[in-house]
This record gives sequence, C-alpha cells and structure tokens, in this order.
Amino acid sequence: MSRTIALLTDFGVTDSYVGVMKGVMRRINPTAGFIDITHLIEPQNVRAAALTLMGAVPYFPAGTVFLVVVDPGVGTARQPIAVETPDYMFVGPDNGVLSYVLQSMDVRRTVTLSNAEFQLPVVSQTFHGRDIFAPAAAHLSAGVTLPSLGEAISVLQTFPAPRLVVDDDVIEGEVIYIDHFGNVVTSIGQCRWVESDRLCLEPRFGSQKAVSFMAGQVTVQLGDAPVQGVARTYGAVEPGQVLALIGSGGFLELAVNQGSGAEKLDARIGDRIELRMQDAAISD
Amino acid sequence: MSRTIALLTDFGVTDSYVGVMKGVMRRINPTAGFIDITHLIEPQNVRAAALTLMGAVPYFPAGTVFLVVVDPGVGTARQPIAVETPDYMFVGPDNGVLSYVLQSMDVRRTVTLSNAEFQLPVVSQTFHGRDIFAPAAAHLSAGVTLPSLGEAISVLQTFPAPRLVVDDDVIEGEVIYIDHFGNVVTSIGQCRWVESDRLCLEPRFGSQKAVSFMAGQVTVQLGDAPVQGVARTYGAVEPGQVLALIGSGGFLELAVNQGSGAEKLDARIGDRIELRMQDAAISD
Amino acid sequence: MSRTIALLTDFGVTDSYVGVMKGVMRRINPTAGFIDITHLIEPQNVRAAALTLMGAVPYFPAGTVFLVVVDPGVGTARQPIAVETPDYMFVGPDNGVLSYVLQSMDVRRTVTLSNAEFQLPVVSQTFHGRDIFAPAAAHLSAGVTLPSLGEAISVLQTFPAPRLVVDDDVIEGEVIYIDHFGNVVTSIGQCRWVESDRLCLEPRFGSQKAVSFMAGQVTVQLGDAPVQGVARTYGAVEPGQVLALIGSGGFLELAVNQGSGAEKLDARIGDRIELRMQDAAISD
Repeated sequence: MSRTIALLTDFGVTDSYVGVMKGVMRRINPTAGFIDITHLIEPQNVRAAALTLMGAVPYFPAGTVFLVVVDPGVGTARQPIAVETPDYMFVGPDNGVLSYVLQSMDVRRTVTLSNAEFQLPVVSQTFHGRDIFAPAAAHLSAGVTLPSLGEAISVLQTFPAPRLVVDDDVIEGEVIYIDHFGNVVTSIGQCRWVESDRLCLEPRFGSQKAVSFMAGQVTVQLGDAPVQGVARTYGAVEPGQVLALIGSGGFLELAVNQGSGAEKLDARIGDRIELRMQDAAISD
Repeated sequence: MSRTIALLTDFGVTDSYVGVMKGVMRRINPTAGFIDITHLIEPQNVRAAALTLMGAVPYFPAGTVFLVVVDPGVGTARQPIAVETPDYMFVGPDNGVLSYVLQSMDVRRTVTLSNAEFQLPVVSQTFHGRDIFAPAAAHLSAGVTLPSLGEAISVLQTFPAPRLVVDDDVIEGEVIYIDHFGNVVTSIGQCRWVESDRLCLEPRFGSQKAVSFMAGQVTVQLGDAPVQGVARTYGAVEPGQVLALIGSGGFLELAVNQGSGAEKLDARIGDRIELRMQDAAISD
Repeated sequence: MSRTIALLTDFGVTDSYVGVMKGVMRRINPTAGFIDITHLIEPQNVRAAALTLMGAVPYFPAGTVFLVVVDPGVGTARQPIAVETPDYMFVGPDNGVLSYVLQSMDVRRTVTLSNAEFQLPVVSQTFHGRDIFAPAAAHLSAGVTLPSLGEAISVLQTFPAPRLVVDDDVIEGEVIYIDHFGNVVTSIGQCRWVESDRLCLEPRFGSQKAVSFMAGQVTVQLGDAPVQGVARTYGAVEPGQVLALIGSGGFLELAVNQGSGAEKLDARIGDRIELRMQDAAISD
C-alpha cells in the first residue's frame, strides 16, 4: 500500500528543493507517488497556502497525505506537526497553514514530529521540509501510524479568517486570491446556484447564516466600477468585458472574458468588495 | 492496465488547478500515471496549444491519453469531446485545439462527453478541466471505452493552419512559436536533411508539393537582416551570432548560438519569414 | 525493476521539451518513474547545473539514474556520456556538468553514448536530450548495463571550481547561487556546527585543510555592509534584517528574515565574500 503524497510549498520551481524532498521520500518509500498542488505560493505567505489547500483537498482521494511546507518560522519555536482526519493526513508546521482546511473536518489526532527515528539523521535549522516534514509524509504514505511520529498535542494554531460580513442587503468581503488568468477571487463563498437565477451563499468564513438572492438583481462593487448581476461563465460577456461569476472553488470572482480581471480592475489581495442584494432571503 | 495520461493546458503552475485535476483522476484511477507536457501555454491561445500538441504527440507511447485543456469557451456551446486514433486517445474541448495533430492521423471515433456518469457529480460552468475532461481521461486510462463516454459525432472544429506558401524560388512562412531559449520557430517544415548539404521540405501545413534545396545556397529573411544558408546546429556560428537551422521539431528556426534569437531579431508570433532558394527542385 | 530517473535541465517549463523526453522514456520503459530536480537552470549555465546537481544527488535513493541536460554544445564535438558510481548512474554531455558531483565519488565506469541501438532512430543535431540522453537514461532505468551503451572512456571534462581560499584569519569565497527566496549562497562550505557555538569548514572546493571557528566571533562581508556572527536560522533576527547562516546545503549564506537577501544586498553570482575569524583553529 502506498498513499498518494500531495505537495504544497512556497519553494518555487527554479531550485532543487522540491526535487530533493521527493528524493528523500522515495528513499524512505520506493513506491511513493507524488502530486504537486503548487510550489509557487508567494514566499512565506501562510494565508495564501491555507486558502489554496482548503480549495484543493476535497478533490483528492481518501488516504492522501498532504505535505504542506510554507514555513517562515523554520528553526524557531513553532512545532512541526501531523494531523489525521477521517479521510486524510496532513504534515506541516503548526503556523495556521492547516487551519482553514481543518475547520470543516473532524480532527482525530494531532502529533508533533518529535520522534527522531522518523527524521533525517542530521536535521538542519533551515530546511525542515527536507529533514523533518518530507520523511514524516513518506513514512505515513508507507503505512507508519500517526502516533509513532511523536507526542499527541491538542491545540493547533489558527489563522485569522478573511473578512466576510453578511447584512440584510449587503455582503462585504475582500479579495483573497488572484489566479494565473487574473481572475479576482473574493471571500464571498461558498456560493452555489439553487435555481437557474438564484444563488445561495453559505459563508465559509465566520459563522453567519446562509443567504440567498437573485443573481441578476445584485450589484458587485470593487473599486469604483460596479458590475450588475452574477453571470454563469466567462462567455456571458464580450471578450474584454468585466463580469462577476462564481468561480470553480465556489467563491465570487471578478473576471474579464479572455483577459485579466486583476489588471483591468487594478485589484489587489485585501481589497474590499461589496455585493448589494435587492431581495435577500436569510435562512436559518 | 493503466495508460499514461499526458497533460497540456494553459492553467499555469502557480494555482492548484493542475494538481486538483490530478487529484480527481487519481480518485477515479488510483494507478493513473501523469506526464506534464506543459501548463504554460499562453492563456487561451488555442493555436499555440494545437502546435505544441502536434509536435509532442509522436514521442509518446501507444495507448497514451492526452488531456488537453485550453478552453476559452468553457461553459458555452463548444462541445467537450474525446477522440480515438489507432495509437492514442485525446480529451479536450472541440475548439480546434486537436485539429493540427489529428490532420495526420486516422480518426476512428469521436464522442461528446455527454454521459454524466463519467463526470463529477457537480459540474461547474468555469472549470470543465476538473469536472468533465479530467474524469473522462481518467476513465479512459482505466479501460473505459470511448463510446461509453457519450454520443458519437462526426465533424470536428478545425483551426486555420499557419501560412506556408511554396513557390518556384521562394518559400513564405510565418513565425509560429518562440521557445524558452528564444529560438524562433517558423511554419517552414517539416524539413529534413536528405544529403549532407541538401534539405527537403514536406509542407506540414496546406497541401503543397515537397521541395528540396541546397542548404548552403538559400537566404532566410525575417525583418531586415538576411541569414545565408541553413546550418546543422547552434555551434556552427560564434556565440552571439544569428543562424538558421532545422529545429528538433523539423521546422526552420532562427536562433542565436548561446543567446536569444527572438530578442536579437525582435521577432514576434505571426512575423513573415521568407526563404529564397537558388536551386529548388520540386518533386511530385 | 525500475530505477527512478531524476531530471535536471535548462529546458524551462513553458515548452514541451521535458514532457517529450518523458514520453520517449516511457516508451522505452513503461514503468519509468520521474523526479524533476529542476528545469529552470539558467539557459546554458553549465556551472549552475553542476552546483545544483552536487547539492541534490546525496538525497536520492541508491540506484537513481540522473539525466542532466544543460548542453550549449549540442551537435558539436562534446561527447554524450554515461557514468556509473557505486550508488548512482549519470547521463549527460561531457562538458563539466557532472564534474562537481563526481569529485567526491568513486567513478567505476564511463562510456560514450555511441551505440545507435540505444538512441532514437533519427538523431537531430539540436535536441540530444530527446534523441540520445533520454533513451540512454530510460534503458539504464530498465536494467541495460552501462557498457552496452557505448565505448569506455577514461578522462572527463572538468569545470573550474568556484573560488575558496582559507587563510589564517580570513576565508575568501564567492557568491555561487541565488535561490528562489533571494538567499545568497556562497562557496564557503561545507560548514557544520560542531558545538553549539562553533562551526567547522571542510572546504568543498579546492584541497585545503579544514578550519573551525566560533560562530559568534566572525565578520562576514559582502559589499560594504559587514554582518556580525553566523546565526542558526532566519528567525534569529527581526523580519527584514540581514543575517549570515549555514544554508541547508552546508554553504554559508547571506539572507534576510522573511525577505530577499539578494535584493537587499544587491548581490550577484561571482561577488566576492570574506569571512574574518578571530580564533581560527586549522586542523590537519
């Protein structure tokens, strides 16, 4: 048996860091199979990693071991940990990078990676990805149990959630991500179509009530150019035009058909976004 | 049995899109093996993807499933399709992206990916790569037959071929690709050496006759600096000098030894290129 | 049996070159497994590739076949070779790219890749990675022996080592690498901690004696801003501050906590660096 190991880091693709971690893992588990989620998280941006992980995990097979190394505090007091949920295992630093994805999961066990038997013989102060995290992930993928890796701990670091406020006729959020195409992803999610013209928002961040609204009767505002209505796909407007839509992760996005929304709107992470509803229905 | 899945997209390497597609495929086929052709096709550039696919396919093992997602029309009327040839299977949008590679192949069967049984339970309007194309490729790699995926269709969208005109003493083409090294690839191909000093062009685009010519007695012109003769390799000229040669894909290239041809020549996709021959021999 | 194939090239990640090499290898060995070290070596920078390879190899499992293609002389007189050491096999051009890593290994056998039986049927002049090197690596991974690939040769090209001079109270080196995070790696290595406050340098380049010194009592100078002492990890200074530390490859680095050392120090490959010791102890 060999579980898939899915990697998420800020190590980039120019250096040998990721390849070296895979070499280390293949030494420990010769049949280890890898899937790269991405290695181009902005350096040291723990929150971007937490958001990316949260969006990707549900699409992976049960049994996957997630190796998550965005670790500005490497070599300091932050703990290296492993976490087990009913479907998955996670290995990474206890700096909040796992907190978004674990929010919606049943955490069964958490341990610190304190057992030197499952680390490299020499542990550097600067590359725990290679010396501690990758070996732990490889051992887990090969069938070692979580409790073998170290001592149980109970409280994990959490990361502040993005802003998302649902009021009677307005939802306030912020820009949380800008993708490769320039699509501007906001904290307003999860949204899904409940009828052909009606959307339901079940807030992913915070603990507010669900709300539903007519997609055609809202105004989305980022900066000074309001967009009318939420469309179903990019092709709903002419090439070059701005639109609001529900992205593939279930979050409200601002985009440009066959162009870059971020460029056209000069959008940046953290920018405030507002969605005004004329007919909101708050549900319990 | 598990066929190799080769991926070609414009999804980039910063977001989790490619990793998520692989997670989806590994769920469906736990032994799926992946080879990335590239994910850095210029966003929404269907023609660049078609050219890249055409060049790469012949080097892959028989049985490979190609998952090609460059899909500016996602969520609109364009059909998601799968195509079977004697050696390969292709999955992608019917927007012409497969048309160059299929030109030289015997298309056995084509279906639309209409059978919901082989899609994700929820299909978004913006990420058919994840919801429709990746599941289809994974099922094919695991042995599902093409007709199971949906209804047969007969006519595919094609993409206009690059310009390539062969006249008595001149071949006219255009720049079709600029690679990572700055090599400027043109539509003048396939070219191959038939003697130590003689080249034969068997036009890849259009349906013109083959022509052969002495490599040393031609003038290649892109912009205002003519290059004399076609060399065999980069090292034929001093570092920093421009040369014309036949690239690894069989197309005439302009390059700079140990430098960037595109930069030195200020070349762009679509630029006109002319090859004047003094001794062309047209063959039937 | 199938050995892991680890790839190191300057082919980039935008074109299909790497994918095509993997297709070629999967044709030859259907169970070939790949690990990418990196494909973003600066184009034609043989020394950067040699350094990267040297640092990565020790972390890979015994039996790994390294496919190293940074080959500005493709198609010229330089020989394509394969090298066998007790633990590994290497395939690449004989241009010095293997010389750093082989310095510390017992070279058992070296052959030129002259046997056409283990090349593609048509060999281009511009892409030996695809036509000669990848097939050789794939055949080795599938169990073909090194001597089958071609004729034995005995002398390999070497590459000049980076500057590293150890004097009584000063060590002189140079910047050899700048990583994705902006960490500035120097030729001063291998360094390791021998006590909690004492470092030992066993020169990796040249053949000078080992030296040990108190980490807190040195001055590291690159450009005009001296740094006092060598720290254990990035977090030893405030975010944004410069520090010297021993990087994960065992080389002295200049870095900025949660920032880019290269940017802050305006450092470039080849820049001179000096480490002044107050209490050096030279050992035999």
